[in-house]
Amino acid sequence: MHQSEYPSILLENAVEEFAKLPGIGRKTAMRLALHVLKQRNEDVNLFGNTFIKLKNEVKFCKICNNISDKEVCNICSDSSRNHSTLCVVENIKDVMAIENTGQYKGYYHVLGGIISPMDGIGPSDLNIQNLEHRITENKIIDEIIFALPTTMEGDTTNYYIHKKLKDYRLKFSVLARGVAIGDDLEYTDELTLGRSIINRIEFS
Amino acid sequence: MHQSEYPSILLENAVEEFAKLPGIGRKTAMRLALHVLKQRNEDVNLFGNTFIKLKNEVKFCKICNNISDKEVCNICSDSSRNHSTLCVVENIKDVMAIENTGQYKGYYHVLGGIISPMDGIGPSDLNIQNLEHRITENKIIDEIIFALPTTMEGDTTNYYIHKKLKDYRLKFSVLARGVAIGDDLEYTDELTLGRSIINRIEFS
Repeated sequence: MHQSEYPSILLENAVEEFAKLPGIGRKTAMRLALHVLKQRNEDVNLFGNTFIKLKNEVKFCKICNNISDKEVCNICSDSSRNHSTLCVVENIKDVMAIENTGQYKGYYHVLGGIISPMDGIGPSDLNIQNLEHRITENKIIDEIIFALPTTMEGDTTNYYIHKKLKDYRLKFSVLARGVAIGDDLEYTDELTLGRSIINRIEFS
Repeated sequence: MHQSEYPSILLENAVEEFAKLPGIGRKTAMRLALHVLKQRNEDVNLFGNTFIKLKNEVKFCKICNNISDKEVCNICSDSSRNHSTLCVVENIKDVMAIENTGQYKGYYHVLGGIISPMDGIGPSDLNIQNLEHRITENKIIDEIIFALPTTMEGDTTNYYIHKKLKDYRLKFSVLARGVAIGDDLEYTDELTLGRSIINRIEFS
């Protein structure tokens, strides 16, 4: 039956490639492949080559490990930011999310993942060595903000980094967790609501 | 704000390309671009080139317009099929769906769309001319099965083709529409349920 399923091996290959992407099933992959087929040649060339170019030419900032088109990213090369705080994040999406708030003016350190024994990711797979290096090199840093996920893996990573850096004169902080602004209490999960009571702040 | 949103123009381009795909929003596009970035170089090259290869090398069967790797598709080159019936479908997904039932052994004719004035698609944009040509060339064909969507556009297309071919000695049929096997009546839409009563068949 397999032979008759796809009338063309080229189409089958394209479906397979789309289906390798996370969250894309075979039906969606088929729809996407047929969409690509309908586009003009130059648009399909652009489509395919964009990913090849991304993979081959993208750089990772040699200071913070953020994605960049240059050796040092836009954030690390901006000397007007607050040199005393370093925000530790899992990946570049987190950098973008925090940057979009406009509330943080310090620098970042992108780990490129979190410690996850289940997935075979240990400290040596992450950009942790370089974090200690940055702190020994740069005496101005006085606060490390952990902005990792509130999962066992995130907590483990916080703990590991804290243990590694606790002998330096540093303040360690984590993001406040609580009921999202605008959210109804009845729809907030118990863990978050409980945490927001424990960590309540003075009314002003 | 746009500048700070993406730390890399290469990444931004990749996100843009994914977001051009139907049903892929910017957030998903970002997730997919970061996924691609995590893959090995050779896998990304394969990914990108597969679509370029599909677009540049794929052929459309010169008889039925089905997608194919050859001049004539596997179905049209299979002489053991029933030469007297021709099933008219909108696109190659429909061919695949009908083939997967294993219930149809005739040949196909792929229009490559349906008549849709709203989208600026007229009869001349479709593979209709060639359908008449097939019928005049091949006297064995005695039945045309319309398997187009039950929409105004589908009905218009059926009507247009029927009008064009009605002077040939041909039987015209459409797919039976009714309550899907296993479906509850209460969840079947009124139009389908109504049609299934009108087109009821003898109990045997």
